[in-house]
Amino acid sequence: LFSKSWWSPWFPAKLTNAVLRAFGVVAFANNPLSGFLIMAAMMASDVIVGVAGLLSATVAVICSKLQGAPDHLVCDGLTAFNSLLVGAICTAVLPDLLNLKLHFYHVLLSIPISIITCYVDLGLSSLMSPCQLPAQSIPFNLVATGLVLSLRGRLYGYGLKIHGIDTQGHGQMYDDAFRTLAQDITEVFEGDQTELQWVKVLEGSVLAAGQVYGAGNMASSIIIWLAFFLYSPILSVVFYLGSIIGSCLAVFLSPGSLSEVYAGLWSYNSMLAAGGSVFFLQPSLHVAVVAVLGACMAVFTQAAVMNIFAPTQLPVLSYPFNVVITILLAISTQRGTTLTMLTNRSFP
Amino acid sequence: LFSKSWWSPWFPAKLTNAVLRAFGVVAFANNPLSGFLIMAAMMASDVIVGVAGLLSATVAVICSKLQGAPDHLVCDGLTAFNSLLVGAICTAVLPDLLNLKLHFYHVLLSIPISIITCYVDLGLSSLMSPCQLPAQSIPFNLVATGLVLSLRGRLYGYGLKIHGIDTQGHGQMYDDAFRTLAQDITEVFEGDQTELQWVKVLEGSVLAAGQVYGAGNMASSIIIWLAFFLYSPILSVVFYLGSIIGSCLAVFLSPGSLSEVYAGLWSYNSMLAAGGSVFFLQPSLHVAVVAVLGACMAVFTQAAVMNIFAPTQLPVLSYPFNVVITILLAISTQRGTTLTMLTNRSFP
Amino acid sequence: LFSKSWWSPWFPAKLTNAVLRAFGVVAFANNPLSGFLIMAAMMASDVIVGVAGLLSATVAVICSKLQGAPDHLVCDGLTAFNSLLVGAICTAVLPDLLNLKLHFYHVLLSIPISIITCYVDLGLSSLMSPCQLPAQSIPFNLVATGLVLSLRGRLYGYGLKIHGIDTQGHGQMYDDAFRTLAQDITEVFEGDQTELQWVKVLEGSVLAAGQVYGAGNMASSIIIWLAFFLYSPILSVVFYLGSIIGSCLAVFLSPGSLSEVYAGLWSYNSMLAAGGSVFFLQPSLHVAVVAVLGACMAVFTQAAVMNIFAPTQLPVLSYPFNVVITILLAISTQRGTTLTMLTNRSFP
Repeated sequence: LFSKSWWSPWFPAKLTNAVLRAFGVVAFANNPLSGFLIMAAMMASDVIVGVAGLLSATVAVICSKLQGAPDHLVCDGLTAFNSLLVGAICTAVLPDLLNLKLHFYHVLLSIPISIITCYVDLGLSSLMSPCQLPAQSIPFNLVATGLVLSLRGRLYGYGLKIHGIDTQGHGQMYDDAFRTLAQDITEVFEGDQTELQWVKVLEGSVLAAGQVYGAGNMASSIIIWLAFFLYSPILSVVFYLGSIIGSCLAVFLSPGSLSEVYAGLWSYNSMLAAGGSVFFLQPSLHVAVVAVLGACMAVFTQAAVMNIFAPTQLPVLSYPFNVVITILLAISTQRGTTLTMLTNRSFP
Repeated sequence: LFSKSWWSPWFPAKLTNAVLRAFGVVAFANNPLSGFLIMAAMMASDVIVGVAGLLSATVAVICSKLQGAPDHLVCDGLTAFNSLLVGAICTAVLPDLLNLKLHFYHVLLSIPISIITCYVDLGLSSLMSPCQLPAQSIPFNLVATGLVLSLRGRLYGYGLKIHGIDTQGHGQMYDDAFRTLAQDITEVFEGDQTELQWVKVLEGSVLAAGQVYGAGNMASSIIIWLAFFLYSPILSVVFYLGSIIGSCLAVFLSPGSLSEVYAGLWSYNSMLAAGGSVFFLQPSLHVAVVAVLGACMAVFTQAAVMNIFAPTQLPVLSYPFNVVITILLAISTQRGTTLTMLTNRSFP
Repeated sequence: LFSKSWWSPWFPAKLTNAVLRAFGVVAFANNPLSGFLIMAAMMASDVIVGVAGLLSATVAVICSKLQGAPDHLVCDGLTAFNSLLVGAICTAVLPDLLNLKLHFYHVLLSIPISIITCYVDLGLSSLMSPCQLPAQSIPFNLVATGLVLSLRGRLYGYGLKIHGIDTQGHGQMYDDAFRTLAQDITEVFEGDQTELQWVKVLEGSVLAAGQVYGAGNMASSIIIWLAFFLYSPILSVVFYLGSIIGSCLAVFLSPGSLSEVYAGLWSYNSMLAAGGSVFFLQPSLHVAVVAVLGACMAVFTQAAVMNIFAPTQLPVLSYPFNVVITILLAISTQRGTTLTMLTNRSFP
């Protein structure tokens, strides 16, 4: 299929292949069948999110082909997965965040945003090429950040949200709220310590797979794990170990309520960091250490950046994964170190 | 003139040429006559701002020559335009921002600041050289940010400004102000929707040219447009299209009052982004698309970063332009893409 | 010693040498005796801080050797000094910052954190290698920032501290406090102007040496100056000039109380910036100018970033030094400039 020309009757087949792979490569699972399962799981969780993702990915494959991006990247969906994430995460997260009601025609906005993401993707890849590292999902993070912040500014002004009470003043009484806040916080903290449920922490480690795609329910997450397993059982095990490490560490590092840990929002970055280390690097004992370390560093990074993101309500997206994986993979570009980048990957 | 030695009787001529070109190259108009017109427009708008710019540019040309910066960059004013901007924008913006009264002798401060900017400029150019991209006006942005924030901290402490009410407490009653804020905001938003005046939006798209130089009035802006036109009618048209796109999009994306849109503060980044795309890249249909996209992305970037800048009252400067143009131009450094950097430019 | 194998009976000697040098190279003093004196000064100031530093450095030398970092860097302690700083500064600064009581067994936490710092160090060095510049103490800054912010978030939530009153509400009454704040600030400012004591400013310029290592008292600082002098009298003089410039400029730029200036917290970045310029660059008149400029720029940078750091209570660490030295050294990587990187250093 790779050898066929795009401008031939093979176009629909090549396009479908690239789009489906885009769904997979978000989590390194470069395989159209895995991609299809993941797409199905997203549709099952929320049809608007699934459609937005599909539309974004399709637009992105065509757009990046027209831009002249390297053909093997286009065919593997690597030029489209950032657009897919912007389309999916923004429909899944923006409405709640900004108190908007999502309509089906909002999905059409995915088209221009997907095109912009393609340019950001290509540009960042060039900027990172002196370091010999891929841009991972940094383009998604930047575009989604731009989108969230610009719309939030438009709707609510540039106020900062301070400790759950935002300062924009739409009818809230800041000082009254403040007086009761001290009590609430105390309760939440005390509540946590008595109620910590390890079963829910485990649940969170499974839900992480869904959170990567903005599909937060259990059924979708299980289908996505199945899709990972189909691509590579080994990668799936590493993903899960990373996710468990993330969930458990987050119990000690996330402040306030543990509901975010239970929902998998503190483990998907660890999952991707551990998986990414194993995926990009030549297998060795050192890589195993790096994977565990990467999972831990992702939680610390998330706990740290939340201090900066929380006042503008910006979700953490996959910044922690990108920071950690970029630093760790950079080591392998230096000669003499015991880490080496894989060039030909073949997975069981 | 280029072939003459600096250390000869030609020194004043070479210096004047480089300084005047510095005024032009802020907006890519590398031409001493355009530069002269722009300088005149700045003087007409505010003589202190003009003098500060002239002084900064002169110091910077000499300083960068002494530093051993590449001679063709010095002669084209490319090593001096960042200093010029720091000198001009800081005298134009700082006093209002920090509630200071500007005296003429403050202009002398331009000298050390211009020298520092030269070092930052040369350093950043080196740091960006692996990416094969120019540093644009990033040095100006960094130095101006440092200056604004450090003086603000000195004068008012490190408090954050929350929704128009800053928390430093110089006699303001935070909670009283807060109670009336909700009403004010509602009024402003309602006011906007009934009062949107497209004529003023058009005015804003013209004023953008002045805002680049800290000269916010109509007469100066028109002279500056004339200077652009003299350098290249085509570039001027692209500038204006970018500016119009920026103004119109900002109507939908800027929060609160539209007075900033009317003043051209939301369109100069779009103007520069569109112009920059056309200036740096080999003409093609794709470049036209990139120019339009760049203009749109600049508005989104501005709306996004304002969330981060507003609490410290830092003006947006030309961050949006720099982010957008750096990402877009980076694409052209990758082989295979349909964008190519121009090496020899000859305009109209 | 350098030619002996690590895996021989020479191991303890090589390890000790590398660890002691790590103490020195924080301030470029690459010499085991200087390192020993500095370690002693840290122990004298606070035994926990000293032990944490020693433990971190030891772990880091072994860890970076196992990672396969370049041998000459490991032997010179250059792969360990960032870990040392994280260990020392975090035990010295974190407890006060977060209102925690430090126990001796907390020191054991230095081990995992030191290992993480090694990875960040190696990764960042690779990321910066296209620019041909060392990563300086950026790894320390990033890891310490991550640690401070993540623990702060865990303990107190993601609230911002606004003007000395943090918003987390543990029993504080925001609005009452606010009413009295205006008066306090006025008093502090007035107080300053009458009380400025130049002797204390000089004291601050001496204490700067200790602050680099988290050892804030005079005796330790003097031992550390002695250690610098032992390595190189010239470098020490430059350090002190930088420190003096920093202290004096900070009197005009630091807001509020001058107690931080008196404690040397506004001069150690200037000290390192001036010293670093002279250490890395080939001696010339231009380098002298750069050293003075670097010392000034460090104070401006500190005053600027404090606006961003203060709301999360993040200490300034050595960000100003790293920003300034990276920009200034980058100039030397460009051909034609009058600054050149030293390749072989030999110091009086």
